[in-house]
Amino acid sequence: MTTTPVTDLSSTDAREMLERHELGRLAFHLGDEVHITPVNYAVDRYGRVVLRTAEGSKLLGMTMDADVAFEIDEVDGFRARSVVIRGRAHVLRGAEAEEADLLPRRPWLEGMREVVVAITVDEMTGRSFTLRPPTSV
Amino acid sequence: MTTTPVTDLSSTDAREMLERHELGRLAFHLGDEVHITPVNYAVDRYGRVVLRTAEGSKLLGMTMDADVAFEIDEVDGFRARSVVIRGRAHVLRGAEAEEADLLPRRPWLEGMREVVVAITVDEMTGRSFTLRPPTSV
Repeated sequence: MTTTPVTDLSSTDAREMLERHELGRLAFHLGDEVHITPVNYAVDRYGRVVLRTAEGSKLLGMTMDADVAFEIDEVDGFRARSVVIRGRAHVLRGAEAEEADLLPRRPWLEGMREVVVAITVDEMTGRSFTLRPPTSV
Repeated sequence: MTTTPVTDLSSTDAREMLERHELGRLAFHLGDEVHITPVNYAVDRYGRVVLRTAEGSKLLGMTMDADVAFEIDEVDGFRARSVVIRGRAHVLRGAEAEEADLLPRRPWLEGMREVVVAITVDEMTGRSFTLRPPTSV
């Protein structure tokens, strides 16, 4: 008796999950290196993943190479789901940045996060995994 | 009145968190692109992050460029913690692969995951974040 271990989420389900979560992980280039960091985010009305960041390696990396990947996931008993995005990051300025500031978000940091970055989604893949109980073999 | 928004975890606390979790996110190069995927993992006695993968883009990417990043996180009320690793991935073979198979893991997939990959940790950073309540401004 076998189960299907991995199934694709519909684009509607993946979008719903993306809009329901607020914590994701951003992977970006920094020179020749790949880096990853947890980020707080929201989805704007254009379907972009919007986050704020301070000046630093994350912003520098995305400015030098806009190619990024983004991931959220959830585990519920014996099912896990993930949504993975590949896209391009760019800094929002002026009215666009102000509009993004109105999105409901839960800031992770008390400090100032000066720059608003939007990730335009080129590809979104949602998956559902069947988990097995812990095993040592 | 201010709080410290971000503090570093001690290396002991970061290590403890890494050993307690089983689901992380792996960021890797695939040609000029950065990719990210959720992975089930365990920590071996050398302190490496060990995971299994099938043949595919993840393995291809890590074989072409061993530079990887890895992340875990947890949220507990108004505190969040993350551990981020930068390291190098390599495929384990023979006795090394067999030893890694004895590590307690919770396989995410029913199917075969043929190849054992170990990430040697070059840099590990644990952080604790103070969260704020949700806000729309």
